[in-house]
Amino acid sequence: MSEKIRISSNVNAANDLVARQNRALFARKKLPSLNMISSPGSGKTSVLERMAARMGTTLAVITGDIQTAFDADRLTRAGATAVQIETGGACHLTAAMVQNALTSLDLDDKKLLVIENVGNLVCPAAFDLGEDKKIAVLSVAEGDEKPAKYPALFTRASVVLVNKIDLLPYVKFSIDRVQDDCRKLNRDIILFPLSCTTGEGFEEWMEYCEGLER
Amino acid sequence: MSEKIRISSNVNAANDLVARQNRALFARKKLPSLNMISSPGSGKTSVLERMAARMGTTLAVITGDIQTAFDADRLTRAGATAVQIETGGACHLTAAMVQNALTSLDLDDKKLLVIENVGNLVCPAAFDLGEDKKIAVLSVAEGDEKPAKYPALFTRASVVLVNKIDLLPYVKFSIDRVQDDCRKLNRDIILFPLSCTTGEGFEEWMEYCEGLER
Repeated sequence: MSEKIRISSNVNAANDLVARQNRALFARKKLPSLNMISSPGSGKTSVLERMAARMGTTLAVITGDIQTAFDADRLTRAGATAVQIETGGACHLTAAMVQNALTSLDLDDKKLLVIENVGNLVCPAAFDLGEDKKIAVLSVAEGDEKPAKYPALFTRASVVLVNKIDLLPYVKFSIDRVQDDCRKLNRDIILFPLSCTTGEGFEEWMEYCEGLER
Repeated sequence: MSEKIRISSNVNAANDLVARQNRALFARKKLPSLNMISSPGSGKTSVLERMAARMGTTLAVITGDIQTAFDADRLTRAGATAVQIETGGACHLTAAMVQNALTSLDLDDKKLLVIENVGNLVCPAAFDLGEDKKIAVLSVAEGDEKPAKYPALFTRASVVLVNKIDLLPYVKFSIDRVQDDCRKLNRDIILFPLSCTTGEGFEEWMEYCEGLER
């Protein structure tokens, strides 16, 4: 057991070192950076498509998937500057994977960098990628007990995008419960309820993004 | 890198040893066993609640969560015999966690054991728990590209429960695409479209469960 802990802490120390290098690069480029984390199918890529429609190529996205480049293709079509990381089985992005992807991204004319993590509500929360803030995405179809059941992410996230609110009439989901449970973990967390289908709530979320310190 | 691989293969060898012990116990008890894997919020627990309404205490469930005992409480109320594993941060169940939980379950009068894994479409697919079959659950709200993006689970699963089909009118989702993509990975995989809200599709799924070899 102590062996296991030692190895795990070595892995994290190496990751944190590279995360600091990424963070220093983003600061030099005056580029706000977000690490977007959620279950598969919460709608991260759809949120980014809507953001791309507004921001065009000034939105840089590094998108992680275990396999396929579907998401980078979708985001490039939507107007963003996107690169894909295929993790080849790994269940989360690491700072080194992001550092590697950054070599093929020109950051000079960008207003925001979003790192779209692998769809996984658990493991990605443990890895610093060098981002300014973690953004959790939670679809109302997933159920409102998720912050209580998966506290690691919601403790560390600055924002929760409560997505697919157009489905609220058809599912059991209380935004109030999510807000209460999140605030118990993290009193500064901010919720943005929104829908990529209707566009509801996007104005507020985009205002937040545009107000991020550069 | 070679160090990392060696450690990982040691972890898996130890896990596989315990999985074989679990499998031998299930065979002695003539108890069919399923390892249910999905993203958070796909509706695993709701599926099990409906199964419990039909099978009562003859349905044994070992349910894994990172934190909270919500799911075992729900399933006990629904009539099943349920025990909770709190993984305390681990993103998947291991065979040893299941073996430990089995010490507090009387398997003698049971017809089916379902191990409800931690909500995670990635990591649980890599760990044999001793089960007969892996069952993937995919909610139509998650999107139909998930088998292509997360092939490890769909390659190893015997069944996909396509859940929340009552939401099909409100989301973009093609069951045909899911079936095609799953069959490319695994030609013997069987899909059961169903809804825990309306009960549609449950008869077929329960017939499948009742037909499992004892």
